[in-house]
Amino acid sequence: MIRRLCIVGPGLLGGSIALAARARHLAGEIVVVGRSEASVAPAVRAGAADRGTTDLAAGLRGVDLCVLATPVATLERQLAAVWAAAEPGIIITDVGSTKGRIVATADRLAAERPLDFVGSHPMAGSERAGFAEARADLFVAATVILTPTGRTAPAALARVRAFWEAVGGRATVLDPLTHDRATAVVSHLPHLVADALVDAVLRMDPAFLDVAARGFRDTTRIAASSPPVWREIFQDNRAALSEALAAFRKSLDHLEAVIALGDAAAVEAELERIKQHREKIG
Amino acid sequence: MIRRLCIVGPGLLGGSIALAARARHLAGEIVVVGRSEASVAPAVRAGAADRGTTDLAAGLRGVDLCVLATPVATLERQLAAVWAAAEPGIIITDVGSTKGRIVATADRLAAERPLDFVGSHPMAGSERAGFAEARADLFVAATVILTPTGRTAPAALARVRAFWEAVGGRATVLDPLTHDRATAVVSHLPHLVADALVDAVLRMDPAFLDVAARGFRDTTRIAASSPPVWREIFQDNRAALSEALAAFRKSLDHLEAVIALGDAAAVEAELERIKQHREKIG
Repeated sequence: MIRRLCIVGPGLLGGSIALAARARHLAGEIVVVGRSEASVAPAVRAGAADRGTTDLAAGLRGVDLCVLATPVATLERQLAAVWAAAEPGIIITDVGSTKGRIVATADRLAAERPLDFVGSHPMAGSERAGFAEARADLFVAATVILTPTGRTAPAALARVRAFWEAVGGRATVLDPLTHDRATAVVSHLPHLVADALVDAVLRMDPAFLDVAARGFRDTTRIAASSPPVWREIFQDNRAALSEALAAFRKSLDHLEAVIALGDAAAVEAELERIKQHREKIG
Repeated sequence: MIRRLCIVGPGLLGGSIALAARARHLAGEIVVVGRSEASVAPAVRAGAADRGTTDLAAGLRGVDLCVLATPVATLERQLAAVWAAAEPGIIITDVGSTKGRIVATADRLAAERPLDFVGSHPMAGSERAGFAEARADLFVAATVILTPTGRTAPAALARVRAFWEAVGGRATVLDPLTHDRATAVVSHLPHLVADALVDAVLRMDPAFLDVAARGFRDTTRIAASSPPVWREIFQDNRAALSEALAAFRKSLDHLEAVIALGDAAAVEAELERIKQHREKIG
């Protein structure tokens, strides 16, 4: 399917893509590009990649699919660098958690030099980072959101979709703005809220953490995720996150008001309505 | 250790206590008391109890330890009924999620008729309810908070502590008010926040639930808990929940303000500080 696959940034996500592509024989050759020899060595040593390099142009030679898997903060800069170094005929995709800016950057670059780009967001990962955490089955049953624009070639979209499905993902399409609003409320907001929950306990009395049970641990698990990764996501998706926070505050105020009224039936009806929706997603 | 153990309310918690006491041979006889024949039959059929009855006085005859495991809303009424029907020498405990009111009720009842009461809160359970969900190992490694007052006899406290430890729990002591503040912030607040998160998604666009990944599912799992149970807990612990909500809003405002400032290092430092605390609880 792919003659030569290049993954820029062999961390948790990039490394898992390499492992999955290797396990499923999706590429004739797999090349990883990193900032340093140390960053590419583990993927090569694990057999996930055939070669590793710190030279982007060398890594992109003869590549038909390039997956950009560097942190969100460096994605736009990296995309411009890949765009300049790539050979014609390449399809480029990424794994960024926010899509509005990267897709706009790609459209701007494509106006200068027509190359195929399709924004991707595989909704997989963990609170850990780095190649050591990479797994060949990371994308199995994971939702992968593709964010084409009016400029996206249907053939490129089909190829990127097929790639994600080949590694086990469930591909779905959203426009970039809707993607950013949806992930703000189902991913970035819950993360910020988990952080605020832990901080609220510290504010009341750090000793109270000693009596935290499974409910608290589940609800705040994502607060143990990588600070550099999430700092970038929060910054990058600030506008949509503000909208999601406003919706959340309305919901919290509403629930508090219903409880304050002391109308047991009304509280129960609200909890029941929310439970019904929550149960739909397993 | 116990000649005759009586459990009032053989649901998830009461049923699990019966199963655990049976499995560990902690009582010579186990009696369950319920509102109806149908509510006590499953525990008897499963062999968790020797007898079931709807007659509280009959159920309490010759009992040395009684565990009140009815819903929070009925606990105070049930406690008064148990107090009136019990024979001298009994020790009474409960499993309620809030402790201020039940402990005050017990102290008031004890002023009229001296019986031993020790407030207990086993921090175990699940989003499901009923005897069908009961498990003999529900309390293994669970924190069990005991809330003695100045009136509590040390021997009664020691006996109740030994009972919870015998079913696998980790007993710890807090005064009732501190208990209610601690559980408000580590248990009741996370639940309300999980409800508000689901509601915020519905407010923005219910279709966004389709792209919810593991982070959202973990964070909102408790929003699928029993509405009647949680309605009661929210109502009962309203004062402490308000304090916890105020702390949470401060934390959320603070984090939002740090993100809005656009100072990447400051955001990362805050996330790192919170992560360090979160990691302590596993």
